[in-house]
Amino acid sequence: MKADNSPARGMRDLLPADVATRDHVLHAITSTYRTFGYQRIETPALEDINRLQGGQGGENEKLIYQVLRRGLPETTEADAPIRDLVDLGLRFDLTVPLTRFYGNNHATLPTPFRSLQVGPVWRAERPQKGRYRQFYQCDIDMIGEPSVLAEAELIEATTAALAAVGLHDITVRLSDRRFLSALATDAGLPEESWDRFFITLDKLDKIGWDGVRAELADMGLPTTAITAALDKISNLREVPAEKLADALTTAVPSLADTVVDDLAATTASLDRLAQQRSLRWEFDPTLVRGMGYYTGQIFEITHPEMSSSVAGGGRYDKLIGHSLGKDVPACGFSIGFERIVGLLSDEIARNATAVLAESDISVADALAVARDLRSQDRVVEVVRRSGKLGAPLKRLQTAGFASFVSVSNESGTLMIGDKRSI
Amino acid sequence: MKADNSPARGMRDLLPADVATRDHVLHAITSTYRTFGYQRIETPALEDINRLQGGQGGENEKLIYQVLRRGLPETTEADAPIRDLVDLGLRFDLTVPLTRFYGNNHATLPTPFRSLQVGPVWRAERPQKGRYRQFYQCDIDMIGEPSVLAEAELIEATTAALAAVGLHDITVRLSDRRFLSALATDAGLPEESWDRFFITLDKLDKIGWDGVRAELADMGLPTTAITAALDKISNLREVPAEKLADALTTAVPSLADTVVDDLAATTASLDRLAQQRSLRWEFDPTLVRGMGYYTGQIFEITHPEMSSSVAGGGRYDKLIGHSLGKDVPACGFSIGFERIVGLLSDEIARNATAVLAESDISVADALAVARDLRSQDRVVEVVRRSGKLGAPLKRLQTAGFASFVSVSNESGTLMIGDKRSI
Repeated sequence: MKADNSPARGMRDLLPADVATRDHVLHAITSTYRTFGYQRIETPALEDINRLQGGQGGENEKLIYQVLRRGLPETTEADAPIRDLVDLGLRFDLTVPLTRFYGNNHATLPTPFRSLQVGPVWRAERPQKGRYRQFYQCDIDMIGEPSVLAEAELIEATTAALAAVGLHDITVRLSDRRFLSALATDAGLPEESWDRFFITLDKLDKIGWDGVRAELADMGLPTTAITAALDKISNLREVPAEKLADALTTAVPSLADTVVDDLAATTASLDRLAQQRSLRWEFDPTLVRGMGYYTGQIFEITHPEMSSSVAGGGRYDKLIGHSLGKDVPACGFSIGFERIVGLLSDEIARNATAVLAESDISVADALAVARDLRSQDRVVEVVRRSGKLGAPLKRLQTAGFASFVSVSNESGTLMIGDKRSI
Repeated sequence: MKADNSPARGMRDLLPADVATRDHVLHAITSTYRTFGYQRIETPALEDINRLQGGQGGENEKLIYQVLRRGLPETTEADAPIRDLVDLGLRFDLTVPLTRFYGNNHATLPTPFRSLQVGPVWRAERPQKGRYRQFYQCDIDMIGEPSVLAEAELIEATTAALAAVGLHDITVRLSDRRFLSALATDAGLPEESWDRFFITLDKLDKIGWDGVRAELADMGLPTTAITAALDKISNLREVPAEKLADALTTAVPSLADTVVDDLAATTASLDRLAQQRSLRWEFDPTLVRGMGYYTGQIFEITHPEMSSSVAGGGRYDKLIGHSLGKDVPACGFSIGFERIVGLLSDEIARNATAVLAESDISVADALAVARDLRSQDRVVEVVRRSGKLGAPLKRLQTAGFASFVSVSNESGTLMIGDKRSI
């Protein structure tokens, strides 16, 4: 009886052509990051459940695959908390594990530490088209660098990585959480409303200015403050680079000079980079980025063929303090690996050669012919054959073979044909 | 307060140097396998718990990390089976997922299908030195090939992969489950005792001939049968290749001709291979291999520096039938990836260049200098510096830098030093 062989709900199998595309993208990205000094690390897929539910993961903490303790009795007791049966969970991102990793290993790591992480994360999200419950993330982080050297380099390295994948027509969007807080202050929004204000502003793309205004009014925020905040934001859109510092200090008087200087330094570096590469950048006062742990500049990269961003990140100077016990400046950038793979669905050519061995050829002979050919060709497969050539050749072509060599036995003599294209 | 930042019990963090060594080994192995036509596939880490506990995993089924269903109530009911709270588990090997994968995707895969899998598996084993609860496996499998073309090619490809890693002094040990069954028959061992007989024989290395004899006697097996079986095995050790067929038919008269022919074909191919490469092989009648699902030839590779085998595998013609509903011939070989990495602990040289930027150099300037250098050098990192050169240079040397370029500001002019070795 045939069993149901589907993967678990919301998961997927990756076929050879899928993996080839993914490996190609991963190799392009990671080899570029390596030239900037980022070094790959790996953490376990399972982390302590208390760490995963520590409050840094936002909504993702509700989507954790929780792992049962080992050695439990076979049946449950009445009214025991389910939570007590669990001690581990599958990671939902690579940032929470990175902060633990840094806390555990910082004594042996250089300062700044340039980390590269690539690997699967798991979220029990409602299954939907193109979203999977296991998917890859690809993050670089610079830990221990307080200056915008981190921001500027992370952005440059990520644009270079995307160019290596073939994504050129990109725009870097930049803002700063400190700017958003100062703006909220100057507009007269009460501090306890800031988080919800940011969340609403983040929806501007989807619900428009009127939608944002209505949602803020529904929160009971004062109309004058809402109008002041949205006017300031609106006035700061599409300000040219050379006028940005002035526009910021005018619109948001309480903004600290260091924030303006930091933005000027990052944009100066982006300007210089844009002279060498096709690259657009803009200060975007509507940019929020979802995670609550950002403390400074935030940024994302967009591409005309994708509705959501290709990559996103920012500075998080307080996060490592939770695990290490003292704050360490840190900044990260995460590439939307699965989105990029979805964009580049071209199959990678295999360019393999088949050794078509008649059924009366000994295994030792067939493998020896393949071994000889392998010294010249990249990929050589042995394929057993009986009878006509037509059908096998058709199959080989479909499977990505470019050429074949026929091996037959004629009156006891091994006959090796010339290599022929398919 | 500093939290405990250790990884979960039995797990480990992999530092940059660890990952570099592992990537080097993985690349050597997978790029060799690719030249034989093996293509990488990927399956999800989580599988249905019923599939994982389907009886093919032997002792490993007791070591599964079990995942709680989502959406459960917050507290348990009295006397409910814990098992009902679980729907998924983390895979403990790559073979069970492969059989599901083949069942799910066989219609789009070539015949034979050459599969390459590399990735983590999880087992909640008792923590001990050098054994971890998350570790990598590296498997190749040929599915759909009934002849020993599969066995001979898997062995050749794996010896080539090990040679690419630098392991040359290896021995291939070969046997056949059908031979072991015929031997047990001819010795007069009752069929229901075979599995335990094989398990005991498998301990020969550890407990010696006397230990095996005593353990078999403790099972209540007839002394004459025990003696007959062990004498046959003993007589078949170290038989030279050209006498193997005769020795087998003499020692085990009920052995089918096809088994003898298959062993002859595999050994003929090994003989041919050994003419080209430094390689030893032997028929080893004491070889069992742990898993219950093997149906034909079994093999492993040993290395003088390792007490357990470097790689092991065999034919399993009945396993895919469990998921597909019809039997498909299959044969696999698994490399002990973690054992090999443990053997090759040399650090991979980074050969990086540091841009040592004085603190008054702008970020845009420092990154531009690094960008220029990156067109010549493989890895270029920007490092902020203030004050003397001595201490930073010492740190750079420890971090694997080979050279540096100093960038300073002299009376408003950017000064870029020559590249100097560290």
